[in-house]
Amino acid sequence: MRNQAVILRSRPTGIAQAEHFAIKDVPIAAPEAGEILVRNAFLSVEPAMRGWIADAANYSEPVPIGSVMRALAVGRVVTSRHPDYQEGDAVSGWFGWQTYATVKAEAVVRKIKELDLPLSLSLGILGINGVTAHLALTLIGEPKPGEQVLVSTAAGAVGSAVGQIAKILGCRTVGIAGGAEKVRLCVEDFGYDSALNYRTDDLETGISAACPKGVDIYYDNTAGPISDIAYRHLAPGARVVVCGTASVPSWSEWPSGPRVERHLLVKRVRMQGFVIFDHMDRYESSVAQLADWVRADRLRYREDILDGIEACPDALAGLYRGENLGKRLIRLSQN
Amino acid sequence: MRNQAVILRSRPTGIAQAEHFAIKDVPIAAPEAGEILVRNAFLSVEPAMRGWIADAANYSEPVPIGSVMRALAVGRVVTSRHPDYQEGDAVSGWFGWQTYATVKAEAVVRKIKELDLPLSLSLGILGINGVTAHLALTLIGEPKPGEQVLVSTAAGAVGSAVGQIAKILGCRTVGIAGGAEKVRLCVEDFGYDSALNYRTDDLETGISAACPKGVDIYYDNTAGPISDIAYRHLAPGARVVVCGTASVPSWSEWPSGPRVERHLLVKRVRMQGFVIFDHMDRYESSVAQLADWVRADRLRYREDILDGIEACPDALAGLYRGENLGKRLIRLSQN
Repeated sequence: MRNQAVILRSRPTGIAQAEHFAIKDVPIAAPEAGEILVRNAFLSVEPAMRGWIADAANYSEPVPIGSVMRALAVGRVVTSRHPDYQEGDAVSGWFGWQTYATVKAEAVVRKIKELDLPLSLSLGILGINGVTAHLALTLIGEPKPGEQVLVSTAAGAVGSAVGQIAKILGCRTVGIAGGAEKVRLCVEDFGYDSALNYRTDDLETGISAACPKGVDIYYDNTAGPISDIAYRHLAPGARVVVCGTASVPSWSEWPSGPRVERHLLVKRVRMQGFVIFDHMDRYESSVAQLADWVRADRLRYREDILDGIEACPDALAGLYRGENLGKRLIRLSQN
Repeated sequence: MRNQAVILRSRPTGIAQAEHFAIKDVPIAAPEAGEILVRNAFLSVEPAMRGWIADAANYSEPVPIGSVMRALAVGRVVTSRHPDYQEGDAVSGWFGWQTYATVKAEAVVRKIKELDLPLSLSLGILGINGVTAHLALTLIGEPKPGEQVLVSTAAGAVGSAVGQIAKILGCRTVGIAGGAEKVRLCVEDFGYDSALNYRTDDLETGISAACPKGVDIYYDNTAGPISDIAYRHLAPGARVVVCGTASVPSWSEWPSGPRVERHLLVKRVRMQGFVIFDHMDRYESSVAQLADWVRADRLRYREDILDGIEACPDALAGLYRGENLGKRLIRLSQN
């Protein structure tokens, strides 16, 4: 067995590009007591990886130079030296950008029970993207039927789930996305009541027209100029879910923008950050709910699958170039 | 009887100065059915008056040019044509900057029951300042014993109450104020564990030293450069109470500052605006609690009393010049 791994070669100041990574053959460690050996089937590519690599303070320690890139993956247990896992079990977890991973059981996020659905979903709609969308929208957004929900990166892995879950919960939804194809996806595949193209539409008038009584929940993945406009349209008592900062290329030079405090005060807005790792106690019940909605075709997803580990080094940069439609994954094998 | 009133003469772009007001004799209307005639004893001067005057969207309609300046006041009922009020009753309410006011009963905030305490307290520690401090700290801040609370404008009418209530609830407190005298007041009169002078101290190192584990609650009345530094010291799970924007001279030209979203995301911070008028159902119970603390000398206050209606026109500008120590009031009579 040969293990190919994607190594972080140097620390980028902005978004990691292909040249910040290298692919190397690394040995496969035999699992010790309490460990398992996993063969990865799909590797995840997340916007949040930028933060995992960055030197600046984050919610996790930065990936060390010279080590395997931190990543979620799904795969099959090859060898188990832990009583909870058997050879052949499907698992998702922190297995890194590599073909094989020897890890402690704590690296496993969960044993996959939804074997009637594709394995790859555990990295998307049934993984941290879907669970983040579900829990952040419900716990921070607190949607009520009839409320108006505005979503940025609305066609993305998290945003597309937010829009659909908000609809299931009885809200009206407006998506903001980049490009005509993503706007079409928002309305046709993900059921948004309307969608705006931030590259060509005037967002100020577009949001006004779509939400004449204001925005009750702004689910944000961007934290940039789109948000600055969205804040001006918040309704009294609105909630802003701060879930990502995709439009800010770097926080090494901390960016400025219009101050938010007056919006928060005058409209009595609640603005709150959400990181899924604080809510792992709700993970299983959320996946069960999401899987039920997927089976009933009430919750759709889209995948952007690249083949082979060679696709990894440029995959994150490509995400920030906005080239993917749907959850970006690297396929190493089908299951 | 002669009624002198302070009229809004023109609309300022920034803080209203003396020249934006005029003092005029205006007739006293005889109360109709459902109305009362009040003789004002004390008039309030609030930082929030800036917003009540401003043309920009706010939580209330702007005071019309040529009309009496909107203000809270306390006074005595002279004539009542409403069954709930009797001649001689002490009342607080929206009676305006004038010596006599004929108002509908809806303009009354409350009948004052704490007649063992000075009447003026109903415009400060037992009025919207104290109730705002109490409710915003407890409802948004959700303080827990042992937590670290940082307060801006810490010696002010709201801030000084926040610091003391946080101490009563078992927190550690750090105040930020402008000038050595206010810093001394914070520590000696209002029981802050420590206080920083933003004019001379390095806040970055000062907050670090005072809150080595970070700030759990930042109670903010400034929304400017002080907040920008405070945000960098928030602890995971921190709450930011957005209660005022005293350090921003004007929102006509919307100011910029360092973006907050990354702080909120990485530290999972909740940031929320508070306006007392949303919480009037809790007003009576809050005043009762505050009055008990005042009687037990657990809650101290400071007043900055100017005499005579002639003091009104410059009183608001003076507040923004930072010249007052304690709650600013205009005294027309003692009770």
